[in-house]
Amino acid sequence: MRVGDSHYRTIWLEGNSVYMIDQNQLPFAFGIKKCEDWLETCSAIRSMNVRGAGAIGAAAGFAMAQAYMAGFHPEEALHKIRSTRPTARDLFYAVEKVYHAGQISVNNAVNVAQGIADENSEAGRKIGIAGENLIKDGDRILTHCNAGWLAFVDYGSALSPIYQAHREGKEVMVYVDETRPRSQGARLTAWELMNEQIAHKIIPDNAGAYLMGNKKVDLVITGADRIAANGDAANKIGTLEKAIVARFYGIPFYIAAPGSTFDVNTPSGSEIVIEERNQDEVNYQSGTDPTGNIQTIRVTNPGSQAFNPAFDVTPAALITGYITDKGIFSSQDIRIRLQSGSL
Amino acid sequence: MRVGDSHYRTIWLEGNSVYMIDQNQLPFAFGIKKCEDWLETCSAIRSMNVRGAGAIGAAAGFAMAQAYMAGFHPEEALHKIRSTRPTARDLFYAVEKVYHAGQISVNNAVNVAQGIADENSEAGRKIGIAGENLIKDGDRILTHCNAGWLAFVDYGSALSPIYQAHREGKEVMVYVDETRPRSQGARLTAWELMNEQIAHKIIPDNAGAYLMGNKKVDLVITGADRIAANGDAANKIGTLEKAIVARFYGIPFYIAAPGSTFDVNTPSGSEIVIEERNQDEVNYQSGTDPTGNIQTIRVTNPGSQAFNPAFDVTPAALITGYITDKGIFSSQDIRIRLQSGSL
Repeated sequence: MRVGDSHYRTIWLEGNSVYMIDQNQLPFAFGIKKCEDWLETCSAIRSMNVRGAGAIGAAAGFAMAQAYMAGFHPEEALHKIRSTRPTARDLFYAVEKVYHAGQISVNNAVNVAQGIADENSEAGRKIGIAGENLIKDGDRILTHCNAGWLAFVDYGSALSPIYQAHREGKEVMVYVDETRPRSQGARLTAWELMNEQIAHKIIPDNAGAYLMGNKKVDLVITGADRIAANGDAANKIGTLEKAIVARFYGIPFYIAAPGSTFDVNTPSGSEIVIEERNQDEVNYQSGTDPTGNIQTIRVTNPGSQAFNPAFDVTPAALITGYITDKGIFSSQDIRIRLQSGSL
Repeated sequence: MRVGDSHYRTIWLEGNSVYMIDQNQLPFAFGIKKCEDWLETCSAIRSMNVRGAGAIGAAAGFAMAQAYMAGFHPEEALHKIRSTRPTARDLFYAVEKVYHAGQISVNNAVNVAQGIADENSEAGRKIGIAGENLIKDGDRILTHCNAGWLAFVDYGSALSPIYQAHREGKEVMVYVDETRPRSQGARLTAWELMNEQIAHKIIPDNAGAYLMGNKKVDLVITGADRIAANGDAANKIGTLEKAIVARFYGIPFYIAAPGSTFDVNTPSGSEIVIEERNQDEVNYQSGTDPTGNIQTIRVTNPGSQAFNPAFDVTPAALITGYITDKGIFSSQDIRIRLQSGSL
């Protein structure tokens, strides 16, 4: 995707090194981080220089390939890469796949790791082509958090249909939820859209109902972290609120995700445990001061406690449809396809 | 109300000077600002050292009384005080009432200004007594923005029933919406509750649906900036979103406001023009750095625009009831009482 006048993937392998857009510097600086060996790649995953399920999966696969290339003990590398992030399903999947591939040859490990990244990119592209059909010329779309190409290897999930519509000449306008407390919308989604030169406005999370009630939103599209077998979707905190408000005003609400996000082993959303994250994410904010230096400041009443649930679960009944790399489906389609393994 | 071990009003007149809690320093520092003449009081209103409809009204009345005490030309003072904030109904009401009172005597102006402040405080106290009946021991209450005593002379509107319940020994827990972009919840409401030693947690605005859906909220109470004759209520952006979510989950949603907030001349919410405020409020945040200095930082993607509507309108149909200084009413009661002038 575009960054200024160039094109980038979020993460890629070149020779023995993994390169990635350093997401810890975004949106205030654009930099490429080079990880010369698998341990550096592990520490980049841990430090969230790379984030988002798809991008983390690719990083883990590349790290395992780097370990093989360096002749490092593969079981030890497997174990260490797995432990970089505790709950990332894509990470486990990728590292194990490359580990097994490397049992045949180092070259095979590299090829399989590359294939995982390519597949992730391709899934994003196909989500874009499927979802583009939902977008009319002139549509105003609301999105929450960052389900763009920075969370994947390329294209993204929720933003991919928007990029595709824009490429086909449709005029679109994106309302970008700030997405407190970590503000991935205001920082990453806005940065992506600016670089792709798509009209957008950052809005406080509080403004969703105002916009929807005043007929300023035609469509809501978000990503998902995990989708249960019945279609219930876990995503960034606040997604549920937008889904309820969209239903209240009769506005279509879509979830965009590749097949790998659907979890046949989770019957419904009530089985998904919601992570409670550190309250400092609510109490402190970072950004650039007038001299351009990054500062972290306290933004809430000192002495008060905060509560910081990271995700919520939107019930399938509130989801108009699912935009996947295999097409657009209803929750009933999803149930059938998951059972037959065709998602 | 309590600040540490002392008791304060938000604003008061002593001799020729107006004293006020400097809300520009809160929650990071507690300071009393002294305005020795009416021009200093005007500039404190303009600089938002004092904010909130009720507190601004009291400030404007005191400023007019100060102008009389100083022997200043009253028409000129009236005009200048009126122009400090363009849309504050309580301000116009108070300054004109004191202006007319001063035509009789300076002493009369001072007494009437004092009476306006006392009435505002008394309305808050009565809202507390009426609303306290809605709160059961152990209730968890969600509130948005700051409709506490800092927005009035004392007691507040939405928080007054909570203070009253606490005083009567009921255990309450308050979820405080951060209320981006200006974060009055995380800063002012949390500060008030901490000083009154009431259990509370600051939450990102995004967490409302998660909490309500998980049966962690028994009651929602917010204030209002203006309530139309049909019961539609304009309040801080995001209030509408909470009202929709509360309705979705069957949770009671109350608006607390004194009679002066109800506007018989506005037939419905659709006549209320929503102010769009400066996008810098979304793009920048201020707070204290680790050395305790106030810093302002950019928190969104540089180069992106933001959209910042200040208020939204919650339709009467979503409001369970109105907690007023005359009792708790339905929207139908409100219509009847407004017509008969008994609100």
